[in-house]
Amino acid sequence: MTELGVVYRNIQRADRVAADQLAQYGSATVHEAMGRVGLMKPYMRPIYAGAQVSGTAVTVLLHPGDNWMMHVAAEQIREGDIVVAAVTADCTDGYFGDLLATSFMARGARALIIDAGCRDVKTLHEMGFPVWSKAISSKGTIKATIGSVNIPVVCAGALVNPGDVIVADDDGVVVVPAAAARKTADAAAAREALEADKRAKLAAGVLGLDMYKMREPLEKAGLRYID
Amino acid sequence: MTELGVVYRNIQRADRVAADQLAQYGSATVHEAMGRVGLMKPYMRPIYAGAQVSGTAVTVLLHPGDNWMMHVAAEQIREGDIVVAAVTADCTDGYFGDLLATSFMARGARALIIDAGCRDVKTLHEMGFPVWSKAISSKGTIKATIGSVNIPVVCAGALVNPGDVIVADDDGVVVVPAAAARKTADAAAAREALEADKRAKLAAGVLGLDMYKMREPLEKAGLRYID
Amino acid sequence: MTELGVVYRNIQRADRVAADQLAQYGSATVHEAMGRVGLMKPYMRPIYAGAQVSGTAVTVLLHPGDNWMMHVAAEQIREGDIVVAAVTADCTDGYFGDLLATSFMARGARALIIDAGCRDVKTLHEMGFPVWSKAISSKGTIKATIGSVNIPVVCAGALVNPGDVIVADDDGVVVVPAAAARKTADAAAAREALEADKRAKLAAGVLGLDMYKMREPLEKAGLRYID
Amino acid sequence: MTELGVVYRNIQRADRVAADQLAQYGSATVHEAMGRVGLMKPYMRPIYAGAQVSGTAVTVLLHPGDNWMMHVAAEQIREGDIVVAAVTADCTDGYFGDLLATSFMARGARALIIDAGCRDVKTLHEMGFPVWSKAISSKGTIKATIGSVNIPVVCAGALVNPGDVIVADDDGVVVVPAAAARKTADAAAAREALEADKRAKLAAGVLGLDMYKMREPLEKAGLRYID
Amino acid sequence: MTELGVVYRNIQRADRVAADQLAQYGSATVHEAMGRVGLMKPYMRPIYAGAQVSGTAVTVLLHPGDNWMMHVAAEQIREGDIVVAAVTADCTDGYFGDLLATSFMARGARALIIDAGCRDVKTLHEMGFPVWSKAISSKGTIKATIGSVNIPVVCAGALVNPGDVIVADDDGVVVVPAAAARKTADAAAAREALEADKRAKLAAGVLGLDMYKMREPLEKAGLRYID
Amino acid sequence: MTELGVVYRNIQRADRVAADQLAQYGSATVHEAMGRVGLMKPYMRPIYAGAQVSGTAVTVLLHPGDNWMMHVAAEQIREGDIVVAAVTADCTDGYFGDLLATSFMARGARALIIDAGCRDVKTLHEMGFPVWSKAISSKGTIKATIGSVNIPVVCAGALVNPGDVIVADDDGVVVVPAAAARKTADAAAAREALEADKRAKLAAGVLGLDMYKMREPLEKAGLRYID
Repeated sequence: MTELGVVYRNIQRADRVAADQLAQYGSATVHEAMGRVGLMKPYMRPIYAGAQVSGTAVTVLLHPGDNWMMHVAAEQIREGDIVVAAVTADCTDGYFGDLLATSFMARGARALIIDAGCRDVKTLHEMGFPVWSKAISSKGTIKATIGSVNIPVVCAGALVNPGDVIVADDDGVVVVPAAAARKTADAAAAREALEADKRAKLAAGVLGLDMYKMREPLEKAGLRYID
Repeated sequence: MTELGVVYRNIQRADRVAADQLAQYGSATVHEAMGRVGLMKPYMRPIYAGAQVSGTAVTVLLHPGDNWMMHVAAEQIREGDIVVAAVTADCTDGYFGDLLATSFMARGARALIIDAGCRDVKTLHEMGFPVWSKAISSKGTIKATIGSVNIPVVCAGALVNPGDVIVADDDGVVVVPAAAARKTADAAAAREALEADKRAKLAAGVLGLDMYKMREPLEKAGLRYID
Repeated sequence: MTELGVVYRNIQRADRVAADQLAQYGSATVHEAMGRVGLMKPYMRPIYAGAQVSGTAVTVLLHPGDNWMMHVAAEQIREGDIVVAAVTADCTDGYFGDLLATSFMARGARALIIDAGCRDVKTLHEMGFPVWSKAISSKGTIKATIGSVNIPVVCAGALVNPGDVIVADDDGVVVVPAAAARKTADAAAAREALEADKRAKLAAGVLGLDMYKMREPLEKAGLRYID
Repeated sequence: MTELGVVYRNIQRADRVAADQLAQYGSATVHEAMGRVGLMKPYMRPIYAGAQVSGTAVTVLLHPGDNWMMHVAAEQIREGDIVVAAVTADCTDGYFGDLLATSFMARGARALIIDAGCRDVKTLHEMGFPVWSKAISSKGTIKATIGSVNIPVVCAGALVNPGDVIVADDDGVVVVPAAAARKTADAAAAREALEADKRAKLAAGVLGLDMYKMREPLEKAGLRYID
Repeated sequence: MTELGVVYRNIQRADRVAADQLAQYGSATVHEAMGRVGLMKPYMRPIYAGAQVSGTAVTVLLHPGDNWMMHVAAEQIREGDIVVAAVTADCTDGYFGDLLATSFMARGARALIIDAGCRDVKTLHEMGFPVWSKAISSKGTIKATIGSVNIPVVCAGALVNPGDVIVADDDGVVVVPAAAARKTADAAAAREALEADKRAKLAAGVLGLDMYKMREPLEKAGLRYID
Repeated sequence: MTELGVVYRNIQRADRVAADQLAQYGSATVHEAMGRVGLMKPYMRPIYAGAQVSGTAVTVLLHPGDNWMMHVAAEQIREGDIVVAAVTADCTDGYFGDLLATSFMARGARALIIDAGCRDVKTLHEMGFPVWSKAISSKGTIKATIGSVNIPVVCAGALVNPGDVIVADDDGVVVVPAAAARKTADAAAAREALEADKRAKLAAGVLGLDMYKMREPLEKAGLRYID
């Protein structure tokens, strides 16, 4: 059962090298490399285009309209972390703005993933602190109810354990379990190596139909061409 | 009861100095300064990023798919106004494009806030005329049914009286009642002064937990740390 | 009845000159020129701002989570085409990324219109291949079920026949039936010529109320001014 | 500016006879009788079909996830009232269940209109206490933050002043300003009288085209019949 | 191009026997029998549970907030028809209530399918006139703009030609092209005959795994059982 | 990392007595008894009103538009189970109808919870097999891709481990971890005992303000009464 009112201080973060390496492949390649699991819902969007990051998850469970635990989470951040914030009910309030971002950056955080709202987005863009959120809203929050830090949370439909790797870019947000970080990074690297060659062929006009040898299976599936 | 078919020509606009001053604080700070009321629904989004404005409201009540009253509203615009458009039913049609924007700008309008759709957004961006809307749509509207100008309207969930101050930026749209404009501007200024100091401390690594003296209330609320 | 499992190779494309000419007017003007029909739902959004294109439709009907037919469609693309992809049920998966875009560009496609998700959006922006989609999602698709190419499809609420002209920009996506392309281009050109003059008048402060002679019909409709 | 933390005890309720009379006409007829204003958004749905009520509004402004003020509102209820609950941000939590309903009924309330969630809906149906809400959710709420009772609120897009008449049925929820209650009841009665005659004619096969004399205006508008 | 302002009086209705027969199979079986095409979006819901109908389509294209053409459509209804109403833009207004239903019933209509709102739903239930709609709303409509009757329309994502068969029940709404009515009815009948036998086996505890011989293909696909 | 292609045959089901006992309290009371965690998103709705069940979870992970694994799951059902179906991407297709329901019932299942669509809802109602789903849709699914059975899944925003207790009624769906079933049942029983007394007091006109001793804390929070 989800524990409320606890802060786990010692979490097992994923292998640092793998966690850092995953950013370069982007969320789509990493998602493929994992066999197509671990993707957050596509309503999670970056507050500005172009950011591409990876890092280890510090998780926080919040209540609707209440960002008290964000300050508790701040203390648990280490260099290379990404904060993942879930809420116990749907809420679009602006839980996070430039002050908290200043604090998160000072602690070494690389990004925030929040299944709720964010504000001060213009300033966050200027500061270069990326956020993936469900909404943008001026509405602030109160500090009245305690949640938890570094417990397993469900964020935008994906299970996130503290220490998992988060990969986020313009295409979305993917969660890589800590134990699978190295294997996933290797699979993503292999995938990307293969793609360069394919891209060159496709650019030269070779069709996927031929490159992937699809003509026969399509015919078997019953596809008919009509002139 | 909402009056249909009337145009109020003489409205009491908020104090001009306060109305103009509020833009610089942005919607999030102003919303806080008002005690967290007056925010439009977060589905209201700017058609391009980066605009930040404030001004006095000229209100207009439209019918679905009919923008006739926008032309009536144009005549009531004075330098420093922001037009706030509500619709009697949900509609995403493009009520507003570059021709109306040309007219609104010529009359001195600073922005449009519309709980419906907008079009010609690329040209509006080039013209520098910001719009916050619920949708973007190529679909134009007819001119067949009369609504009203400068009556109280509900726009995106917020009550707007003619003459109220509108503050809009990338975070959303806030309505400040005309009578509260000065007080709100002062409160926002005070808030902002405080934040500069806080930002410096947080950037230096001080935690919100300590700066806001949260450790004791969190402990009282039952928060437990687990190593 | 919608045919599944067929590819029509010989389609009647709209007049090339008209099809190319329509881009310059943009979706809003073209939609007006057609008498306000043919617009896709406003949830169709460009993956980056600023693109403005027109071209002839190659249509493809896909199944949820399956992009096999995109490769079949690629072979049917000719210079100046725009691929229009419909799905048999709602789906936000990322059916299209940079590899397919490379192939589509090599075949001469100008854009993709897809009533589903797209990924690799940062790369697509760098490549200059515009996509209008319902969603952005890292989630890839399988290749297991056959649909059809170049049959009539309903995409985002609009009927698209193969060979129709598609006009897409920041305001949305409009479908012009092939047979109406020339007439629509002429009507759009005429419309745009008229607008330049109107714009100048409005910029000079003339009100739409006077320019469009609306004062009398508004009075007849019962509009009252209150001082 | 919306006042927080206040309870107005003495409100001016609409004329009791008119307020009670309006139920029989239903929300659609009353909405017509008012000239098509005052309707809440159609996402407001009854928790069970068939209830049809009218009454005078006791308003309450709540915070997301917090129903403390519902208990404060209970004390302000008089026989014939309907409680109208607005929230300062979108929330689907279950603010109201069978215990509060027992209290509301004991005080004389006829219904609850809430722009948020409700729970215990099976029991509420058995008790015969109707609720119109945006959502149904098991999730309860806390009691930590004060809002207000009997201030003007915006509920589901409609402005409600304390004492206004609420008319609710399977078609939706309409707000009649207190001062317009009598006039609206008369207009609704007149409308209904007219409809009986029309219904008989239509049932006998007379077409609306003829009964409403629409053939000429349709022809003037350009309608063509094609055999 | 969608024609506006026309009424086609002579339409080719589907085979009457097949059109009537299809009701008994329901929308799910008919959808299967067609190869899974022709389904309207699942947001189309019946205003009351339990109705199950089929009939030939009389189509009508409406404008947002304007039901004028519904009266024109009424005259084109013949015994056994179902009216299918599309709108040129998203709209939830209540286009249809008990008066129009009285007229439609007097003309022989069996149901209304409308990609917009409906009202008087309690009375419609009492009258036994079923409606499948996108919304329920008290808000009435004006009579100002002409659309068309009996042209091809896109309703809730499905193309409907006048004379096509509509099958609707609690599961949704399916469109059967007129030319395919007989073939589809036969296929549906065959499908249903097969199901009775399967149901008996499943009720007796036979697993689909065995009845459909899935164990081998699942194993080939790589499925592993872990004890 | 979510395993694909596996079926766990031996799962640890929650204590049977507690699992069965929880139904009587309903989802709202159970959610409270757990401290307000474990609730699925409120978009999960019963296909018919009035069902109230509890049971142990057999989980299944499906792909969009593919219900192959439902047949695999059927074999794992034991008396008293509730099947919980999650999908790797948003999908409204009708994965489940009366044939599968016949099979599930024959195996002893009490209900289905599915974060996707369901069909044959009228027949399911007649059979008395309750389903909580995100959508209702006639659209069937294919059998092409393998998922998993009895792995941890995220269903409608809630983490479900195989063997957990599911409590579902008209208010929604709650997940009780297997290890917490007994404790939660006791807490729910205690809660319900308390409520009978409260209900009697409230029915007698005692206010929650007094019964819960809220007057003092409200005053301290700053609430002011205005006559």
